[in-house]
Amino acid sequence: MEFGIVGLGRMGGNMARRLAEKDKKIAITNRSFNVTEALARDTGHTACKSYADLVASLEKPRIIWLMLPAGEVTETALSALLPLLSAGDLIVDGANTHWQDDIPRAARCAEQGIEFADAGVSGGVWGLENGYCIMFGGSNAAAARLKPYMEALAPTPMTGWLHTGPVGSGHYVKMVHNGIEYGMMQALAEGFALMKDKPGFDLDLAAIAELWRHGSVVRSWLLDLSADFLAEDQALDDIAPFVADSGEGRWTTLASLEQGIPVPVITLALMMRFASQGKNDYAAKMLAKMRHGFGGHAVKKD
Amino acid sequence: MEFGIVGLGRMGGNMARRLAEKDKKIAITNRSFNVTEALARDTGHTACKSYADLVASLEKPRIIWLMLPAGEVTETALSALLPLLSAGDLIVDGANTHWQDDIPRAARCAEQGIEFADAGVSGGVWGLENGYCIMFGGSNAAAARLKPYMEALAPTPMTGWLHTGPVGSGHYVKMVHNGIEYGMMQALAEGFALMKDKPGFDLDLAAIAELWRHGSVVRSWLLDLSADFLAEDQALDDIAPFVADSGEGRWTTLASLEQGIPVPVITLALMMRFASQGKNDYAAKMLAKMRHGFGGHAVKKD
Amino acid sequence: MEFGIVGLGRMGGNMARRLAEKDKKIAITNRSFNVTEALARDTGHTACKSYADLVASLEKPRIIWLMLPAGEVTETALSALLPLLSAGDLIVDGANTHWQDDIPRAARCAEQGIEFADAGVSGGVWGLENGYCIMFGGSNAAAARLKPYMEALAPTPMTGWLHTGPVGSGHYVKMVHNGIEYGMMQALAEGFALMKDKPGFDLDLAAIAELWRHGSVVRSWLLDLSADFLAEDQALDDIAPFVADSGEGRWTTLASLEQGIPVPVITLALMMRFASQGKNDYAAKMLAKMRHGFGGHAVKKD
Amino acid sequence: MEFGIVGLGRMGGNMARRLAEKDKKIAITNRSFNVTEALARDTGHTACKSYADLVASLEKPRIIWLMLPAGEVTETALSALLPLLSAGDLIVDGANTHWQDDIPRAARCAEQGIEFADAGVSGGVWGLENGYCIMFGGSNAAAARLKPYMEALAPTPMTGWLHTGPVGSGHYVKMVHNGIEYGMMQALAEGFALMKDKPGFDLDLAAIAELWRHGSVVRSWLLDLSADFLAEDQALDDIAPFVADSGEGRWTTLASLEQGIPVPVITLALMMRFASQGKNDYAAKMLAKMRHGFGGHAVKKD
Repeated sequence: MEFGIVGLGRMGGNMARRLAEKDKKIAITNRSFNVTEALARDTGHTACKSYADLVASLEKPRIIWLMLPAGEVTETALSALLPLLSAGDLIVDGANTHWQDDIPRAARCAEQGIEFADAGVSGGVWGLENGYCIMFGGSNAAAARLKPYMEALAPTPMTGWLHTGPVGSGHYVKMVHNGIEYGMMQALAEGFALMKDKPGFDLDLAAIAELWRHGSVVRSWLLDLSADFLAEDQALDDIAPFVADSGEGRWTTLASLEQGIPVPVITLALMMRFASQGKNDYAAKMLAKMRHGFGGHAVKKD
Repeated sequence: MEFGIVGLGRMGGNMARRLAEKDKKIAITNRSFNVTEALARDTGHTACKSYADLVASLEKPRIIWLMLPAGEVTETALSALLPLLSAGDLIVDGANTHWQDDIPRAARCAEQGIEFADAGVSGGVWGLENGYCIMFGGSNAAAARLKPYMEALAPTPMTGWLHTGPVGSGHYVKMVHNGIEYGMMQALAEGFALMKDKPGFDLDLAAIAELWRHGSVVRSWLLDLSADFLAEDQALDDIAPFVADSGEGRWTTLASLEQGIPVPVITLALMMRFASQGKNDYAAKMLAKMRHGFGGHAVKKD
Repeated sequence: MEFGIVGLGRMGGNMARRLAEKDKKIAITNRSFNVTEALARDTGHTACKSYADLVASLEKPRIIWLMLPAGEVTETALSALLPLLSAGDLIVDGANTHWQDDIPRAARCAEQGIEFADAGVSGGVWGLENGYCIMFGGSNAAAARLKPYMEALAPTPMTGWLHTGPVGSGHYVKMVHNGIEYGMMQALAEGFALMKDKPGFDLDLAAIAELWRHGSVVRSWLLDLSADFLAEDQALDDIAPFVADSGEGRWTTLASLEQGIPVPVITLALMMRFASQGKNDYAAKMLAKMRHGFGGHAVKKD
Repeated sequence: MEFGIVGLGRMGGNMARRLAEKDKKIAITNRSFNVTEALARDTGHTACKSYADLVASLEKPRIIWLMLPAGEVTETALSALLPLLSAGDLIVDGANTHWQDDIPRAARCAEQGIEFADAGVSGGVWGLENGYCIMFGGSNAAAARLKPYMEALAPTPMTGWLHTGPVGSGHYVKMVHNGIEYGMMQALAEGFALMKDKPGFDLDLAAIAELWRHGSVVRSWLLDLSADFLAEDQALDDIAPFVADSGEGRWTTLASLEQGIPVPVITLALMMRFASQGKNDYAAKMLAKMRHGFGGHAVKKD
């Protein structure tokens, strides 16, 4: 046994399950040991109480796959693991990490003869069933070691995983993937919003979403998901019009700024999310006051 | 006396006042005769109870300046006036009318030998004091007849009025003016929103607005107005983040669609107003549900 | 035989072929009779030289499906056909017609006791193989008469066609579909543009497109198509950066203006197409001159 | 004499001239000594060949105003100057520096007892004549020392300069100023592009720009500048549609990303500049190929 997963949340837990289904035996650990134990019972994987335990369970050279929240949590785990590992071990960060953070981490690991690689993982809660789409950045040697695991995680052994290039490239490609996702989601949402309550037509949005899944140009997995929830409820009366955003949308715009390549639609999709979070309110107040200032137009009071 | 104004609202009333200050004597009428009488007392203008009264008060060839809400109200007034007028009379529509409505109206008037012209009027509630900026579309003959009135209404006899071209061009140019206004307002509002509550700096937005009025690249009348209201209150806590939109922003985008010339920033400024009106809410709900669909992310309940 | 198609271009021709494959016998006609004859030979359909010929070939009550360019060509065909048809006949406009044109056409047909219906048809050149996605607007009676043909044209008898509502609703829903398509395409294009020539990574865009087809959140038919052409050539050196736009993108924005519902991303995708057509050039020149004006920055000469 | 300027380009040179006109005697230095000497002849300022020379010419505590290109050039100058300066000296960076760079520089200077302050300076090539708009970030003590110079540089002693807050706040506010500038410029440019060659109207863009300067809502300095160049040439036939961008537009969007406050119009104005630089071409090629892929639409060859 050479492969361990650190972090058994929505993503890491399901990846461990999928590996079990494909007869890969691995070691697993998680902040809360209850979760680790339960998953070990279900899968036959080896439950580990600590990083030391995990490292001890694996034969050298080891592969440690971090599946933790990006940022501080991942950084802390890396710092805790490094002293426990040996030259020749391989650490893979599967989180939604900013690709620019990968480069210094790889350098830091290399000082100990440890290889660092990055993996962007798409597929969400459906990955267990459908397989994950994995973008892997690292050396050819690391790619070769990971191949059997990627073949098990991906939809089929031949599809859905790619060695994208050097360290950082996996997260970079995943970031762009998520940027595109922002734009596609926003386009779909705008179209359905236009059809909602269109006077005179009484359109059935659930039926239209289902319709478009078959033979239309916009058929897509995001549409499939939309058809699912619209079939249950298309009024969405009890949903707040609040859309969270995560790092990758912001980083895609940041990459646009750094590269000087325009991504106006992706960026606008992100900023519409900011607006949904109430972050456009002060600007709107300013506009209302300016209109009052030049035209005497009434201002709504809050 | 040859000149009459129909409509004594915020714009028409102040225009009548400015004409009085410049020693132009005119006839005035308004839906509510109280308003007409009060303004006549202040200005020495001739108060008229009805269109017939107004028409009878004026010597031929008459000039009738409509300063009414665009659309149905203006259309109704035109229909009521036309039978009362004579060949050689001139009707000027000073409302924020869609320029494409001017062409058929001019044709309809021409059937009776009556000239129709259009005027886009900018300046808002400050026009009385500062003068109005007038964009006039119509024949050269009509322009010549209107010249003394435009010289009185404009900031100076030489500035702030222009014969822009044939009928419709005045409203077209005014429409573009308002489109630009949308974009400039939004740019200013976004900048101030960014500075509001910027952690660590405790910026004084009123002082910054005042600062920029002197020597900066963004100095502008819209900034002057912003400096005025920010000096009174920069928190804007009791203002609702709701921005109304009027026809001209939408028509500028419509012109973009018809001409195939991109006006992305003007259009986006308009659509941010739609969003401020709660019209983006369904799209945001869709996005929240899609995120839940693929990633299991929590959805806020309303 | 009750069903005739007028117009055998890329869409109409393939629809006739698909109907033949599903054992529907129909009458066909086209501006150029050569095309009609060739298609009749391939399919066993009845070739007609003229509208009169077509009408004569069909038993009453007839169904005439127009598959012509929207606008004048469709209008002309309708005017030519109407005198030849009888009460109880049904005309279906399958073109990418603006939905607002459907309402008066339906009224005009109704005067003769002829029913008019509209169909938005998606699927492009792949519809022959995959089936078409059909959005049908009209009466329940018309929907019932068309059902066997829609079942044959759609991907399966049960999927890919929908009676969306009254006349006009089919084209309206198709218009929104195309608006969403604009936004999704732009999002994808922006993402790939960002990855193209990303320094340090030497990304293989063809491999990435293929990768994302399997298990990623952005998997979609537009991505499938992109993977296809990128596999052949990802440099795109001999392609001009010029993107045409058709009516439906513009109409989606028009609908946004009319309904006051924001579609910022869809609109921006449209306007980026305008820009690709060189229609942003004057604005860019103005900006270069303004920068020179305030900052003395050099201006590039053309 | 306590005040020295390093860097006599378009901005620094004119600031030195304005200070001379206001009877401030200062020391000046520049990469090329020819420029320094010529300016010293014109102004009576003290020409210095080197940083050492400049430092030696000034009485303690000194004020050194850096007016160099932001980034490496400013960094290098700072590193060269620091060893020459004494505790109590004050360095002011007047460049268009990213405000986040100010904080570590201030810390580095503080280690030597040297104060570091930042100044955002607007006004461009017109600052000499009209005065500069100065946003100053630093301690109250530094502000007090700089006051006489800001009073001389600004349009009037009372207007056009502001102590915005702690170190970094001057550049931050200047950055937002430039972001707003991007948006306002783009709005103006879009409007004029729409009017250019508007069929049927033959609009005189120079006359319209001049018109709007008087009494309109969009009156602004950017419009004044536009009226100037349009009066000379409104065809702009020999201007390339290429708009450069500088750091501050990008940083404003970056601030939006960091703060989660949407600035969609400012960002879009920036991205339209990227597009004018040919950086949208690959995305446009992708779109052309996708359209070909699903609809068989012709692709233009380059």
